[in-house]
Order: sequence, then structure tokens, then C-alpha cells
Amino acid sequence: MECEVSESGKNGLSLFFEPQSVAVIGSLREGYFGGYVVIKTLLNAEFGGKIFPVNPSYQEVLGLKVYPSIKEIPEKIDLALIMINRRSVPDVMRECARKGIKAVIVVADGFAERDEEGAKLQNEIVEIAREAGIRIIGPNTAGIVNSANGFIPDPYEPGYKKVKPGAVAICAQTGMINPQAFPYGDLHYGVSKICDYGNKCDVDECDLLEYLESDPATKVITMYLESIQDGQRFLKISRRVAKKKPVLILKSGRTKEGAKVSASHTGSLAVDDQIFSAACKQAGIIRLETFREFFELPKIFSLQPLPKGNQLGMITFTGGVGVLAIDEAAEYGLSVARLSPETTKKLNAIFPGLGKTVVDIGPPMAVNNYMAIYADILKTVLSDDRIDCLFNIIWTSPFKEFVEEYLKFYRELQGSHQKTIATWIYGPSIPLINEMSSRMEDLGFPVFSDLEMGIKALGIAYQYSNRKKGEE
Amino acid sequence: MECEVSESGKNGLSLFFEPQSVAVIGSLREGYFGGYVVIKTLLNAEFGGKIFPVNPSYQEVLGLKVYPSIKEIPEKIDLALIMINRRSVPDVMRECARKGIKAVIVVADGFAERDEEGAKLQNEIVEIAREAGIRIIGPNTAGIVNSANGFIPDPYEPGYKKVKPGAVAICAQTGMINPQAFPYGDLHYGVSKICDYGNKCDVDECDLLEYLESDPATKVITMYLESIQDGQRFLKISRRVAKKKPVLILKSGRTKEGAKVSASHTGSLAVDDQIFSAACKQAGIIRLETFREFFELPKIFSLQPLPKGNQLGMITFTGGVGVLAIDEAAEYGLSVARLSPETTKKLNAIFPGLGKTVVDIGPPMAVNNYMAIYADILKTVLSDDRIDCLFNIIWTSPFKEFVEEYLKFYRELQGSHQKTIATWIYGPSIPLINEMSSRMEDLGFPVFSDLEMGIKALGIAYQYSNRKKGEE
Repeated sequence: MECEVSESGKNGLSLFFEPQSVAVIGSLREGYFGGYVVIKTLLNAEFGGKIFPVNPSYQEVLGLKVYPSIKEIPEKIDLALIMINRRSVPDVMRECARKGIKAVIVVADGFAERDEEGAKLQNEIVEIAREAGIRIIGPNTAGIVNSANGFIPDPYEPGYKKVKPGAVAICAQTGMINPQAFPYGDLHYGVSKICDYGNKCDVDECDLLEYLESDPATKVITMYLESIQDGQRFLKISRRVAKKKPVLILKSGRTKEGAKVSASHTGSLAVDDQIFSAACKQAGIIRLETFREFFELPKIFSLQPLPKGNQLGMITFTGGVGVLAIDEAAEYGLSVARLSPETTKKLNAIFPGLGKTVVDIGPPMAVNNYMAIYADILKTVLSDDRIDCLFNIIWTSPFKEFVEEYLKFYRELQGSHQKTIATWIYGPSIPLINEMSSRMEDLGFPVFSDLEMGIKALGIAYQYSNRKKGEE
Repeated sequence: MECEVSESGKNGLSLFFEPQSVAVIGSLREGYFGGYVVIKTLLNAEFGGKIFPVNPSYQEVLGLKVYPSIKEIPEKIDLALIMINRRSVPDVMRECARKGIKAVIVVADGFAERDEEGAKLQNEIVEIAREAGIRIIGPNTAGIVNSANGFIPDPYEPGYKKVKPGAVAICAQTGMINPQAFPYGDLHYGVSKICDYGNKCDVDECDLLEYLESDPATKVITMYLESIQDGQRFLKISRRVAKKKPVLILKSGRTKEGAKVSASHTGSLAVDDQIFSAACKQAGIIRLETFREFFELPKIFSLQPLPKGNQLGMITFTGGVGVLAIDEAAEYGLSVARLSPETTKKLNAIFPGLGKTVVDIGPPMAVNNYMAIYADILKTVLSDDRIDCLFNIIWTSPFKEFVEEYLKFYRELQGSHQKTIATWIYGPSIPLINEMSSRMEDLGFPVFSDLEMGIKALGIAYQYSNRKKGEE
């Protein structure tokens, strides 16, 4: 096994995610956006570091002393957040340099993504930063999140201010992933770090990959990319990181039309899509296809063990859906497992005819009180050594007691086996399905919003596991 | 234009969907499944026809007189519903024949899908039916629904008992589409007819296509297929029907593995997938890829006008998502429209820099009270003759007043233009997004659960419209 010393300690990104002291430079007026919101959010999230608002027109905000300029702050500053007019950014960067600040998030927009003047300003701040040894995230970014320490400097008012801690790191070239936009409050798998790298004038996807590679809170890395700064470096680093943690990437600009618009709004050139696809394959990156996958697929890695092989067990309540699932499974190299003779026998004893490759609980469901045998069916299938993973298709009635029973059965599964389980819930009440999904995920069992998504989750988990084995 | 006389009047399916009198033969015990549930559901749904429960052990059920056998019923019966042990079905079929009943739904299972005995029994009932001129739906079916007349003979207790009337017909070889399984109560586009054709021993996909072809309540037909009874007939009929109404088909058994299981659970042979794909193309059928598409894509046809061309307008609140949407649009031949000079000018007057190919409301959103200009932006884009359809990406805050405002703007759009609109809503509160989506659909504007789904809806609507034009 390859063993390289991680460079993440050296690249200084820990100042971004674990700052002890933060200067917030920008408007402190109450509103939907700006420094006031950042400070309020940090206080709400119980961020433990020191916060230094900077604005010449204020004395105090939200109980904190406001400093007229960075140099007046009497303490050492780990990170500065800049939310001011683009033309003033270079001067503030120089102040940061003089203060010895080594990490700056430039939230301000209007740089390379807007026009020539913006591109020039962006070059200017990059130069200042290089000379002073400052790292920049942005410009044109909604910032970052560290769920572990309450460092959620969200500049937008709307949004959930608490982000559930978990094992998924989410990075993107868009604010769509930040708390003002995405329903973290409704997610029931947690996230470790969030980063919108915006225009990537300095810190880019490679720096983040290296940082997350050795971030103990992160088990799986998800990225949305429109461009790649340095193809060679990306290939080298992502390959190394993908050996340790699954790296899932959604890349836009697949088509000529998309690439053109992408270039215009981030000011960066898109990479040829076929080259990117080949690179992903080589590096062992899991390439995502839709925006929904971006948010759903990582949870299979964060909540479940990797499957040891490609043998898929399946419980369904209707043959039709079983067939759709088998079709989909075949695309990922998953094979529907033949259950062992003992399992078959046990299942047939529970209900005549149940002991088939695909366990169809439709017939017992037409019988009153089939929930009494459901737990037995589930445990019997899961205890069969011939299966590596299980796709469980649950039908739930509109009656709440069904939900409680299913949850009880799942609670009993915790820690009782080594199989990868993906669940899909179907039934006549969407609100109840949503509630049940959330509560199952709180128990550590990922529930997918689509049949196909659930199978894909198992499929990529198997493929990742298989590749890892080949490399060992 | 081709002009054939529709055969749907002749194939007698109207007895299934519009019976004046129904005999329900089966268990009348209270429970989750059976005749009792069927009768309760029909009464709840205010079915206007006469209901005749048949069971020798009862005198009365739910206020209705129960008959010991079919022949004792003193009136003419249009349709019989049979839910009894498979071995008793042939005898009851003979009784139906003697009574002059011409339409029978065999809900009972255990026929060709189970074993040899079942296959024999199935052949037997088919023979009885042929001799007596009876049409059969099933066996092994959860039945049918006609939303217009309250004919919802649902044999399963759980499920919404009211189905919102609308223009989408849903047919499938599985009970997954029936009210006990699918959340019709949470759907905000309506359905016209539902049919689970089960084992298709007689009435098949072709008969249904013909019936729905001239059903005035149905504007779009959605089908889930595992097999095709008669390829030549299917090609001929679907081609004819697709010229009048969009026909959307999800077919399973794409892979060898899937086809094998499919054959075992419905007792019918699957058709080669490549041949089926070619047939769809030839016939002008829209082939669906996922189960979610099956429920979501038809609504673009039922709620919106067809696009007159491929010019796509787009409003987004972040460039990144715009790029993903453009990538997707290109796959369907949609082209992002260049707005007219007047539109560009107007948009720039609303907010500097807004007048671009993709209208990015991100920058105005960072400004307080951007909702004040939102309606203007929407109307200005929609009034441009250079666009045929609009993909509107909405971000909504977690504050309810935003939702109310968006709904107000959409209400103002009703009847004011001829463009096809698909909407996707994004934001930090899923419950609020769900509420907003439902209410928008009640206004006639389809909202899709995925970015990609919304674009695909516009894409297939354009392709259908384009094919239709070519045929005129």
C-alpha cells in the first residue's frame, strides 16, 4: 500500500476551518446579507473563537466591540472575512497583510466573473496575498462551514443556522451548498465541512482535497466543479485521496453550451468533458450525474459499511418494482444473490413462497397483521452470508403505527450485522414517508428518495469497495 | 393528416370505467383487504352506480343488501369484481356469463404468475370469457380508478380514497400505481383513469391505449410495462394514439436479469429491450427512464401548452445551477434563447447586468426586498417572443411571506401568455418547498422535484410538439 505524507498540515487551510479569532469586515446594518448576519450566525451557532467586527461607523454590534480598522484590533487574527465593495478589497488585503493575517475569505463579488476591471482587481489581491503569504478563499463565495466548532460564518440571513455534524464534506463552486440555500436543517445525515470556493483565485479543489484527506471528521468528500485549475495536480491528488476516502464529483459544463456560460460566470475555463471523465476513471473518482445525487449519494458512505462483494439481497412488496431495481442493479455490476438453502427454508416457514431470490412480501401483506412477521423476514435475509448488501423496499401505510413499527425493527438491526443497507420507502402519504426517512437516517440507515438512487448508492459503494480491494 | 375511426367505442372498456351497476364478489369481513374495503371506498368516493355485494354468509354490509350469489341479483350487472380463492374463480366466471355480465375484474391472484395450476386456471377463465363475450382485466390486479365518477374500487384499506380528477391516465402491470400504494392525496396534478392490468390475460396495453385514445378526460397517457402481448398491434396502435396524445412508457426488464424475474412474477415473456426502444422511436412514444419520471413528467403535458419551438428562457438565482440546466437542455435539443434587444434593455433597467441569456437574479437577491422586482423580471422574460418555454429556478427563503408572494406572481401569469413553464424550487426549508410546489400545481404550473427533471419535462414536450408538427 502506498504511504505518502499528507501535505494538508502544510497548506494552512486549518486556519479557515478552525480559526481562534476572526475579523469580519463589512456592513453591520441589519438585513438579509452582510457582516451583521455573519456575526449573528456565529453567535447563534456558539462559535467558540473570538469575533472582531470591523467598521468605522459602528461602536458596538450584537454586544461586541466594533473596531474602526483591522490594525486597531489588539489581538492576533487567524482569519478575515471581507464583505465590502470590490474596489476597496485590495486596500483591506494590504491591511490584513500588515496585521499578519494568513487566511482571508473574500465574500465580495464583482471580480473575474464580472468584467475586465474585476479580473484586474482579482489579480491585484492575488499578488498582495502571494507576497504576504496569505491564502484566499474566493472571491465571490458564500464562505465555509465547520459543523464541529460552530464556525458557520453565513453572510445570508435566511437559512438554518445549525448544521448537523456528520461525516460528509461538501465543496462547490457555488453558494447553492451553503446554509442559506440548502436545507441542512431537514437533512438527517450530517456534514463535516462545507466550502464554496467561488472564483478559486487561490484555494482550489486540490487544496481542499488535501485538507479533507486528513480531516478526521470527514469520511466522504463531495464536490461540485465547473472547472479545474491544474489538471495534472488534480489527477495526482484526487487519486491519492480517493484511495483513502470516497471522492464524489458532479461536474457541469458537460456540453459546449454549458461550458460557455460556466466560463462567463466564474471567470474560469472549463476542462474538456471527455478528458475529465477519463481522469475520474483513472483516479477512482465517483462521477455524479445529477444535483440530487450530489446530496443523496454520499450518505451511503457516511452511514453504512462498504459492501464486501456484489451480492445483492432484495426485499420488495411488489414484483414490478423488484424488476426495475434488478435492471438498475445490473448496471453497477450488482448481482441478485441466491439465498442459501437454510434462508430459503426459514423464509418459506415464515410464509409459503417467500423464499425466492427477490423476497416479495406482497402476498403476506395482503394478510392482516403482516407486521408481525416483517421483522423476522428482515433479520432472516440479513443473516444470510450469501448477501453483501440489501436493498429494502418498504411500503408504509398512511397509519402512524406502521412507521413506529418499522423504526423499531430498524433499531433492532443496529450493530447486529455487517451488511450495507439502502432503503426506499413508498406509500400513500408523502409527509409520513418524509418523517420515517428522517428518523431512519437518524438511526444510521440511509433512505433514498428514488428507487434508482438507492440502487445506485449500493452500486457505487460496491464499486468503490472493489477498487479499494484491488489496490491493496 | 391520417384519420382513422377509433375502435375504442367497440372494445367495451367503458363498462369497466363507467359501470352503472357493480357486483362485488368476495370476503365482506372488515380488514385491510377485500370486498368490504372495495364497498367502503366506493361509498366514500360517492360512486353513483349501484353496488351489489355477493357473499352467501352475509345479509347486509355497510347498509347494502348482500346477495348469496350473482344469479340472485335482480338487476342487470355491468361489471363484476372477483376477489376469491383462485380455484373458485372459474365457477364464478360461469355465473357471470349466465348473468350476461360483459366486464370482469379478477383481483384474485395465484394464476399464471404463481405456478402451473394457476396458469391452467387462467386459461380456463379466458376460455369461459371468450365464449361468453366477457372482457377481463387481471387476474392479479389491484383494479382500476375513474376519478370523474368516483369509481374507485380499491381493495386495499390504506390509501387515499379520493383521487383528484385531472388529465393524466396511468396504467401499469403493478398495483404500485393504485391508491393504496401511491400518494394521490399528495399529488396536485390530477388523474383521469388508473388501471393495473395485472397478468393481462385479456385486456392489455393495446386495449387501454385504444380506450384512452378517445377518452375526453385523458390528455396524456402514462404506462408501465413489463411485457407486450402483441408487438405488431402495439406498434400500430401506439403510433396512432401518440399522434393524438403524448404516450409515455416506462418499461422494465431492460436487462437479462430483470427480464427473467419479470417473466416469473407476471407469467408473461418480456420483449427484447432494443427492439422495444426502436419501436418507441418509430411510434413516437416517449420512453421514461425512472420510476419518479413516471409520476412527474406527464404533468408538463397535462398542465401546460406545448412549446412552439426549442428556444428556452431561463431564470436562475445562481450561475452554477444555470450551467447544470443548460447542459441538460442541450441533451433534448433545447437551445438557450438570446433575448431580444428590448427585453435585454428592460431587464438591465430593472437591475444592472440582468439582461443576459441566462437571467441570473443572484445579484439582485443580495439586495434587500428583491421580491419587489421579481414579478417584473418574470413578466419581462415571458413576454419575449424569442422564447418558447421557460425554466424558472426559484429560491425560496424559510419565511412564509416569500411563498405567498411567489404564488401571487404565478397567479398573475395565469392566462397571460402561451409559453410552457417548468419550475424548480430550492431553499433551506423542505416543508415550505413542498407546500409551495403543491399550491403552484393547483394553479396549473408544474413544479419538478429535480432540476434535471424540470428540464427533461420541457425537453420531451418540445420533442413531442416538434414531431407532431412534422406529421401535420
